[in-house]
Amino acid sequence: MLMTDLIAKKRDGGELSTEEINYMIKNYTHGLIPDYQMSAMCMAIVLQGMNDRETLDMTIAMVHSGETLDLSPISGVKADKHSTGGVGDKTSLILCPMVAACGVKIAKMSGRGLGHTGGTIDKLESFPGFVTGISEEEFYANVNRYGIAIAGQTADLVPADKKLYALRDVTGTVPSIPLIVSSIMSKKLAAGADVIVLDVKCGSGAFMKTSEQAHELARGLTRVGRLAGKRCAAVITDMDQPLGCAVGNALEVKEAISVLKGETKGELLELCLALGACILTEAGLAADDRAAREMLQTAIDNGSALKKLADLVSAQHGDSRAVYDTSLLPEARLKLEVPCEKSGYVSRIQAEQVGLVSMHLGGGRATKDSGIDLAVGAVLHKKVGDYVHAGESLATVHANDAAKGREAVHLLRGCYTLSDEAIDRPLFIKGIVR
Amino acid sequence: MLMTDLIAKKRDGGELSTEEINYMIKNYTHGLIPDYQMSAMCMAIVLQGMNDRETLDMTIAMVHSGETLDLSPISGVKADKHSTGGVGDKTSLILCPMVAACGVKIAKMSGRGLGHTGGTIDKLESFPGFVTGISEEEFYANVNRYGIAIAGQTADLVPADKKLYALRDVTGTVPSIPLIVSSIMSKKLAAGADVIVLDVKCGSGAFMKTSEQAHELARGLTRVGRLAGKRCAAVITDMDQPLGCAVGNALEVKEAISVLKGETKGELLELCLALGACILTEAGLAADDRAAREMLQTAIDNGSALKKLADLVSAQHGDSRAVYDTSLLPEARLKLEVPCEKSGYVSRIQAEQVGLVSMHLGGGRATKDSGIDLAVGAVLHKKVGDYVHAGESLATVHANDAAKGREAVHLLRGCYTLSDEAIDRPLFIKGIVR
Repeated sequence: MLMTDLIAKKRDGGELSTEEINYMIKNYTHGLIPDYQMSAMCMAIVLQGMNDRETLDMTIAMVHSGETLDLSPISGVKADKHSTGGVGDKTSLILCPMVAACGVKIAKMSGRGLGHTGGTIDKLESFPGFVTGISEEEFYANVNRYGIAIAGQTADLVPADKKLYALRDVTGTVPSIPLIVSSIMSKKLAAGADVIVLDVKCGSGAFMKTSEQAHELARGLTRVGRLAGKRCAAVITDMDQPLGCAVGNALEVKEAISVLKGETKGELLELCLALGACILTEAGLAADDRAAREMLQTAIDNGSALKKLADLVSAQHGDSRAVYDTSLLPEARLKLEVPCEKSGYVSRIQAEQVGLVSMHLGGGRATKDSGIDLAVGAVLHKKVGDYVHAGESLATVHANDAAKGREAVHLLRGCYTLSDEAIDRPLFIKGIVR
Repeated sequence: MLMTDLIAKKRDGGELSTEEINYMIKNYTHGLIPDYQMSAMCMAIVLQGMNDRETLDMTIAMVHSGETLDLSPISGVKADKHSTGGVGDKTSLILCPMVAACGVKIAKMSGRGLGHTGGTIDKLESFPGFVTGISEEEFYANVNRYGIAIAGQTADLVPADKKLYALRDVTGTVPSIPLIVSSIMSKKLAAGADVIVLDVKCGSGAFMKTSEQAHELARGLTRVGRLAGKRCAAVITDMDQPLGCAVGNALEVKEAISVLKGETKGELLELCLALGACILTEAGLAADDRAAREMLQTAIDNGSALKKLADLVSAQHGDSRAVYDTSLLPEARLKLEVPCEKSGYVSRIQAEQVGLVSMHLGGGRATKDSGIDLAVGAVLHKKVGDYVHAGESLATVHANDAAKGREAVHLLRGCYTLSDEAIDRPLFIKGIVR
């Protein structure tokens, strides 16, 4: 088999066989197919596509490129969630305790954040003493005992994806539904859960700019997941502005706790209820969406969801008192308001820019080995559709450095666009695919 | 400027600006853009195309990647010819002396052959003593004095093409009209001639399988040539079988001499008259095609074309007596007939396979540094459409090794397909584009 022949086949619109896809992924992972051939193949796939069978084969071949987690020692239904990424996305911090409180097992291996979006693991480290690098034994024991564990990724899951994604990133071959599906689903399949829910972001701040593209990706993800024997659902959500109000590690933990306490509602709760309902119904723990939502709401109302977060924190050696007293979480020295210069309706908040402001404050990693300041970030007081009076604060900057803080105030103001005319609040949940 | 942005632009069907194309070719040539980005770009170009402006810009950018020949010290109109490659193609050996005898200047730098197709330079070395590596001074002096010089390429013309073609060859990105046009035309423009004629091969043995594809390439080549200020024409010819009868260096020289003497007619002469007429009319030396063909025929009839070949050989230190007495050319020790096993009409001769037989006999290079045996090869006695009786010889193998010779007889027989029904001789010249 020759890689040049496979490239030519795909270039001419042909269908790659299972053997051809296995050959390609195996040899690329082992360095026997050079980057320059793989990038030409990726471009051919971007422009000629792959059908579901090819995408599934590619996904499975990528799973087999490295280690996989065997969650079978854990009793019950194991669920996992993936988001296509967004600024202020603290969904896992809320969703995982909520569904664990309803009886679903969460055994989640999570990556660290890079660039302007923080990772769940980083956010959890806001709890004093929290250990993400627990042993595999402890990980399984915690899931069996508390129903939940969220650890840093220790196993070498899907090395093919690491290599391929790095290549796609610099060769203009990221925007391809089959390639995105195989990248996401290979990692989810390798992580071993039975139920997989996906939060597909849509809008100017996301890969998928239109609702049609996001629906297409959601359908691709769930189809391939089901073909691989998993129970799957996807929620398509708006990403034209940051998710919720807090951006920054400890600030996002505080917002998550507020949702788990039932104090904060809005889009963040809405999303967690939608994703949670998908998990509970797919897991067979709720008869329908309505029953599932009731279970989830009860877990908030009776405090069991918040208790589950406290269990997670203490089981991983963190100070769980901080769940009930958030003043124990890291707090920035300086709080600077961002006064609005004129009155009007907020028509736009550039999500990616807000993420970059938080990163510049020290809240995100520029490189894999950078340290991060857990306390810094921003809390938005105004979202799209809100009316703001001149002089009123748009947001609060949390900083530990006065100069950086002042710069952040300036930058954050630039993230907002105001309009004289009233702006409709965007529809947050654009669809559910199951 | 970022290469990833340029790749994305072309991937999405956009048009690359002159600056973008210059940036890309310059930095790729200098190793500042890696192969894996360039191959993704090439695949995007294969599938999304380039318009004439982009193709011209790419051609010019490639010309500027290396040295160029300045033929202005040579008086008169300088012509050059390019063939898209074929087995048994000795056209330059006939065409160049013919048009030089008619007053056109031929200052040709030619490459060596690689694989199953021989280079003009290799073929000329069949003349005892012939030197292809003459100095630049000698090269110009010979053209001024005799009107013709054909030397090995000394200048570093179009290094971008060498690098890019090697990459395209292993990444499935060869079949793209704009990329083929810029590859061919950059080399022709760098070589400095005023008139450029192109022999575009068409058929099973060529890149362009159909007449439509070949016409499209011919139109692309001549359009870009004209946009670059050159006078251009292209002849589209059949390559479903080898060109002429001889395949192998000295054997092809003998066939070329036979055409120049007026002894051999047929497709080879037809092609040289068509290309030569294009040159003479484009050069302004003939009023029309008919007048040009008369001039060319006269050059054969009065021996001036053959004399011009003798001038070329002696000017480059070769034994020009061999032009008049071909027994002085290298001759193989063994001549083996290829008897036909049954009667019938020749319906097909696999050109590429015939070339490989010659290569296995020692007549072609497997790698750039291989030596070649100038004497070996094959002479076909039957071409497509000919009737052959059982036992009659299809071809003669010229070998210097008995075992290889016997194998060649076997392989050569396999290149022929016979039919019980009469076969129309294929139309050799399929079109002329000017």
